[in-house]
Amino acid sequence: MKMSDIKDIQDVRNLMRTVPDFPIKGIPFLDILPIFQNPKAVDFIINCIVDHINSTKEKIDVVVGLEARGFLFGPIVALRLNAAFVPARKKGKLPGNTINVEYQKEYGVDIFEMQEDAIKQDQNVIVIDDLMATGGTAEAAGKLVKKLGGKVLEYVFLVELAVFDGYKKVDAPVYSVLKY
Amino acid sequence: MKMSDIKDIQDVRNLMRTVPDFPIKGIPFLDILPIFQNPKAVDFIINCIVDHINSTKEKIDVVVGLEARGFLFGPIVALRLNAAFVPARKKGKLPGNTINVEYQKEYGVDIFEMQEDAIKQDQNVIVIDDLMATGGTAEAAGKLVKKLGGKVLEYVFLVELAVFDGYKKVDAPVYSVLKY
Repeated sequence: MKMSDIKDIQDVRNLMRTVPDFPIKGIPFLDILPIFQNPKAVDFIINCIVDHINSTKEKIDVVVGLEARGFLFGPIVALRLNAAFVPARKKGKLPGNTINVEYQKEYGVDIFEMQEDAIKQDQNVIVIDDLMATGGTAEAAGKLVKKLGGKVLEYVFLVELAVFDGYKKVDAPVYSVLKY
Repeated sequence: MKMSDIKDIQDVRNLMRTVPDFPIKGIPFLDILPIFQNPKAVDFIINCIVDHINSTKEKIDVVVGLEARGFLFGPIVALRLNAAFVPARKKGKLPGNTINVEYQKEYGVDIFEMQEDAIKQDQNVIVIDDLMATGGTAEAAGKLVKKLGGKVLEYVFLVELAVFDGYKKVDAPVYSVLKY
C-alpha cells in the first residue's frame, strides 16, 4: 500500500475494504486493517476522536476498549486523553476478580468481562470499539461500566453501520468517525 | 490506583501484580493491566521501546503485534515509529487471504494467522508482545513475517521471563523493558 497523504476523512474511507463471506457466508465484512498500513491515517482518526472528546466532554478518566479491535485504538486515545485504558475481554481472558455480562452478537451469544477494580465510582468513561452494528456489544460494555459505578459519557467507533440503528441500544451519545 | 509520577522503570515494575492460579492452577500470572491505569507509565514504556529502536535500528516499516495484549502496545509504537501496524491473530479472526503457522503454547497448540498482503518483500519488521516466556509465540510470528518476505530486526516485549531462555528460540535480538 502506498503511504499516501491523508487530507480528509474520504482518504481514510478509501483505505477500507469489504471482504465477502466473512466470518460466515453471505456477510460482507468491512476490513479496517488497511488503515493501519498507513500511520498518517491512524493519526487522522485518533485526532478526530480526541478533538471531538476534548471539545464536547468533561475530563475523561477511563477509556474502555472492547476485545480485540478496540485494543487497536483505545490505548492510543487513552494516552492522548491522559486517561486510564481498561479492556473488556471475552470470558476467561482476564486475571483476578472480574465481573461479567452476557450479550447477543450477530452470530451468537457471548460474555464480556472486566476486572472489578478497573473503574472507580463516578469516573467518566468512554467506550471505544472499531465498529458498531446492532449496538449489542457496546450495550454490554456499558452495563459493565455501570456495575462498577462508572458513567459512560460517549460510545466511540471508527465505523458505524447506520442501517442497524445501534445508537438506540445505548444510554449515551454515539460518535463515529465514519458512517456507512 | 493513584496516578503517581513515573520516574524510572522501578515505578513501572511496582505497578505490575501477580495473580495466582491463572489461567490454570499452579501458574502465577503476571498482570500488566495495572500499568494501563496510569498513562504516564504507558508513556514511559513506549518511550523506552521507541528510543531503543530509533537508537539501534534502521527505519522500521512494520510493527507486528500479537493477539491480544500485543495490540495494546503495538499500534502506539507503530505510530511513534511512523510505521504500519500488522496484527498476528488466532485462527479464523482475520478477513481475506491469510497465511498461518502452528505453534506450541505453554498450555497447548495454537495457530497464528496474518493477512497475506500485510507485509511486503524486504520490509524491516519488529514483532511486539506483552510477555516472552518460552518464546514459542514470538518464533511463530517470526515465521509468518519470513513467509511474507519481511525481515525481523527485533523481538520486543514489555516483560521477559528470563528463566525460560526464550531468546534462544528466535532469529533476531530480543529487547524487553522489564526482566523477571
